Amino acid sequence: MSEQQNNNFNLQLRRVAIDTYRENVAYLHRDCDIYRAEGFQALTKIEVSVDHHTIYAVLNVVDDDSIVAPGELGLSEQAFEQIAQQEGCLVSIAQAALPASMDAVRRKIAGERLRQADIQHIIRDITDNRYSKMELAAFLVASGETGLDREEILHLTQAMTDSGERLSWHEPLVVDKHCIGGIPGNRTSMLVVPIVAAHGMTIPKTSSRAITSPSGTSYTMEVLARVELMPEQLDTIVKLEHACLAWGGTAKLAPADDVLISVERPLGIDSQGQMVASILSKKLAAGSTHLLIDIPVGPTAKVRHMREALRLRKLFEYIGDRSGIHLEVIITDGSQPVGKGIGPVLEARDVMQVLENDPNAPADLRQKSLRLAGRLLEFDPDVRGGYGYSLARDILDSGRALEKMRAIITAQGPQQTEYQLGELHFDVCAESDGYVTAIDNFQLARIARLAGAPMDKGAGVDLYRKLGEPVQQGDPLYRVYAQFQSDYQFARRLTTQDSGYQIGAESDVSSRYMEI
Amino acid sequence: MSEQQNNNFNLQLRRVAIDTYRENVAYLHRDCDIYRAEGFQALTKIEVSVDHHTIYAVLNVVDDDSIVAPGELGLSEQAFEQIAQQEGCLVSIAQAALPASMDAVRRKIAGERLRQADIQHIIRDITDNRYSKMELAAFLVASGETGLDREEILHLTQAMTDSGERLSWHEPLVVDKHCIGGIPGNRTSMLVVPIVAAHGMTIPKTSSRAITSPSGTSYTMEVLARVELMPEQLDTIVKLEHACLAWGGTAKLAPADDVLISVERPLGIDSQGQMVASILSKKLAAGSTHLLIDIPVGPTAKVRHMREALRLRKLFEYIGDRSGIHLEVIITDGSQPVGKGIGPVLEARDVMQVLENDPNAPADLRQKSLRLAGRLLEFDPDVRGGYGYSLARDILDSGRALEKMRAIITAQGPQQTEYQLGELHFDVCAESDGYVTAIDNFQLARIARLAGAPMDKGAGVDLYRKLGEPVQQGDPLYRVYAQFQSDYQFARRLTTQDSGYQIGAESDVSSRYMEI
Repeated sequence: MSEQQNNNFNLQLRRVAIDTYRENVAYLHRDCDIYRAEGFQALTKIEVSVDHHTIYAVLNVVDDDSIVAPGELGLSEQAFEQIAQQEGCLVSIAQAALPASMDAVRRKIAGERLRQADIQHIIRDITDNRYSKMELAAFLVASGETGLDREEILHLTQAMTDSGERLSWHEPLVVDKHCIGGIPGNRTSMLVVPIVAAHGMTIPKTSSRAITSPSGTSYTMEVLARVELMPEQLDTIVKLEHACLAWGGTAKLAPADDVLISVERPLGIDSQGQMVASILSKKLAAGSTHLLIDIPVGPTAKVRHMREALRLRKLFEYIGDRSGIHLEVIITDGSQPVGKGIGPVLEARDVMQVLENDPNAPADLRQKSLRLAGRLLEFDPDVRGGYGYSLARDILDSGRALEKMRAIITAQGPQQTEYQLGELHFDVCAESDGYVTAIDNFQLARIARLAGAPMDKGAGVDLYRKLGEPVQQGDPLYRVYAQFQSDYQFARRLTTQDSGYQIGAESDVSSRYMEI
Repeated sequence: MSEQQNNNFNLQLRRVAIDTYRENVAYLHRDCDIYRAEGFQALTKIEVSVDHHTIYAVLNVVDDDSIVAPGELGLSEQAFEQIAQQEGCLVSIAQAALPASMDAVRRKIAGERLRQADIQHIIRDITDNRYSKMELAAFLVASGETGLDREEILHLTQAMTDSGERLSWHEPLVVDKHCIGGIPGNRTSMLVVPIVAAHGMTIPKTSSRAITSPSGTSYTMEVLARVELMPEQLDTIVKLEHACLAWGGTAKLAPADDVLISVERPLGIDSQGQMVASILSKKLAAGSTHLLIDIPVGPTAKVRHMREALRLRKLFEYIGDRSGIHLEVIITDGSQPVGKGIGPVLEARDVMQVLENDPNAPADLRQKSLRLAGRLLEFDPDVRGGYGYSLARDILDSGRALEKMRAIITAQGPQQTEYQLGELHFDVCAESDGYVTAIDNFQLARIARLAGAPMDKGAGVDLYRKLGEPVQQGDPLYRVYAQFQSDYQFARRLTTQDSGYQIGAESDVSSRYMEI
């Protein structure tokens, strides 16, 4: 239909108060002359233009004058924001051509290798919102799994990095760490950042708000401080404290990645190539020069076998080296949750206990954080190889890390609300004597989510027993906290289906993976 | 989110007069308790249930009480029809689980072979509208090109056949023909059907209304007779005349195929496996026992090389044999349009000229139709092998085919409107002396579509020169007819960019493919 692109019409712009999330929708009345003349079909993609500014939207046809009248063009809330015009101004519409880069996607479907220019073109069209959900799905499936080779992943990473803004901190050494995810309670960033920043290194840590996990750094940090900060504020805080622990959504970093994630998540597809391109494009756009990647491996982690972890490590290293970032990969034990708490309030408690050198602090969280911080400290040319860990431990034990954390909280603005644990709770107990032989990360995360985490900060799961520990029948394994009765019931029902714990003989305790 | 399936709420049903075509949309007010409690996101898929009847819809969040108020659940027009309830009745909603068969789709993405039960499950979920557009795209891309083997295509065909109603004509011999498409003017069905029916064979021909082609049997037949007939009417007509030439949309045959096509078309993906499953599932559901498939081959046809045509033929034969249909494949010359006219009125004229044995009738359309009809007639055990063609010719030359066509028109109801050729027209002329060495099917179809075909029945292209014919500079090659000024301009602009004709030396005339 590209031949009709030049065909323009004037319609009055109207905001339709419907939230269509990441999909632009335009509304046109069925009796509108243009609809009839053009034979648009519902779900046709159209271009909406004012003053040489064009957005793309899917068309819905309306039979109700009170939503849009003939002669008007309605836009859903997000589309209306994108076009950035007043209601009532005149807009023109035309059938949108298929995004030209879909030709490259079709070649990928047919098994061809794509050139850099093809990938740049695809990512440009995606960034401009020219792809529909189904076109995005077509690209993701065709380029998933074995569909992209290393060079293509490199081009994809670079194109996604270039799709939005790129921060610069005007420092030679800007470090960051990133975990590929999947392990509940794994709040090492909130320890690594103050330790590393106390040493004087710059570590502007921003995180997403993952709705698929029961917490995450942003939600947990929000228990202690404000995390929604404008780019200028972040800049000031990082200049002052060398660090931040903030939500990354205010800066427009690698927006193409956000668009792709909006389809990857609901489809439940997640290939190594796309994961690497997604993580590295965000970090490159955030201005990091040195990056530590944490790949937890375990039977219920994202990466389940060591061979898979090694392949992923090499892919990270290859793309990192070609993109000019100093990148190290650490493979860690992902056989169970890290720390005791799962959920924002509980995880914040664990973090503060470690910073305060509380004897009750979870040892595994402390241990893992020190290892990661040690590796990051060794990015400093003045730190002798192998001395990072002991340096990190000194900073933590001396209270300097706690001091730095307090300074970061002050800089970001302390949280005004005092979040409490959920008022409703129940314990899940061992059904027999024995040893904890397995803890299912995925199931524990699911229970915490059903209990209300991360939206209800006080909801979650507090683990009383970890892998390898002896239990007697009736001993509580963990406690579930919820704020609302319905959440309490959902979580309770789920724990009766599968508690996520296995109790067996001591010899059945799964051996742990060690750092490579 | 499948864990929340049991969570039900009561909302008042409301019809929202928005046409969302093949995608169900539900509208919920942002201030609705349920929206807030559940943390639904826009574009979440939800289940809407009344009395054990459930439909699936994508959620849009509304900030305008006049569209839906808190406490109401709005449904788009199609979704409202599907739920088949009165406004105001109480409905419950819950987050929809991912369709369980998406697990099989993910295995296909990872390169696994799917079992029959997997494919049946996928097609059942698709038929129940449980797949979103992006999930459909994921399935199509993963199963496109080399993604399905023969067994999988067989299972797909059978599952799609079983997805809807299945007609039965209570006859031992029910013949049909189908062309895979792509050749303008190729209206052989309107000749084959009366010839074969005049012999006494049953041939209930139904066709789709393809919006991607400039005409098609339904649009062309509609110039002469009514084509939108209810299943019971078709039944009566076929009993009376052994034949019909109708639109197939009134019977719900292989509905899963329609859903898949609604994503294949805009994505522009079209694999052999999906094409075969699509065509055969429709024909099996339509109750055909004997089927002739026409595969035109040519440089601008859908199938461009003989090796590809042979592969496709073998795939049709394999699936046909396993599905219990007598199937023959004929590979035909697809190097140029068939007949002279492109567009409903012009194609109807060509067809009637052939039926009336008019000396001006296009010889190639007559020839091809006789060949196809001959092959169909040989499905009759009483017709000696090799005698079908001459029998078909006798029926046509004697006027019995014309008589049968008139009877079919009478039975279906003669068209009341007398359609005329478009009032606007222009000629496209040869720019040099020589021979017509190539005619681009795709470009001629595009010109006819821009001129207004098939919606404007009088719009289209009338060819004055065919492949291999000599021309002198300034000779008209074809005439374009349009009804509206804007269409006239669009078509004219396109012909100046590329007329679709090549003029060269006599030796450059491309050799034709012969029947295999």
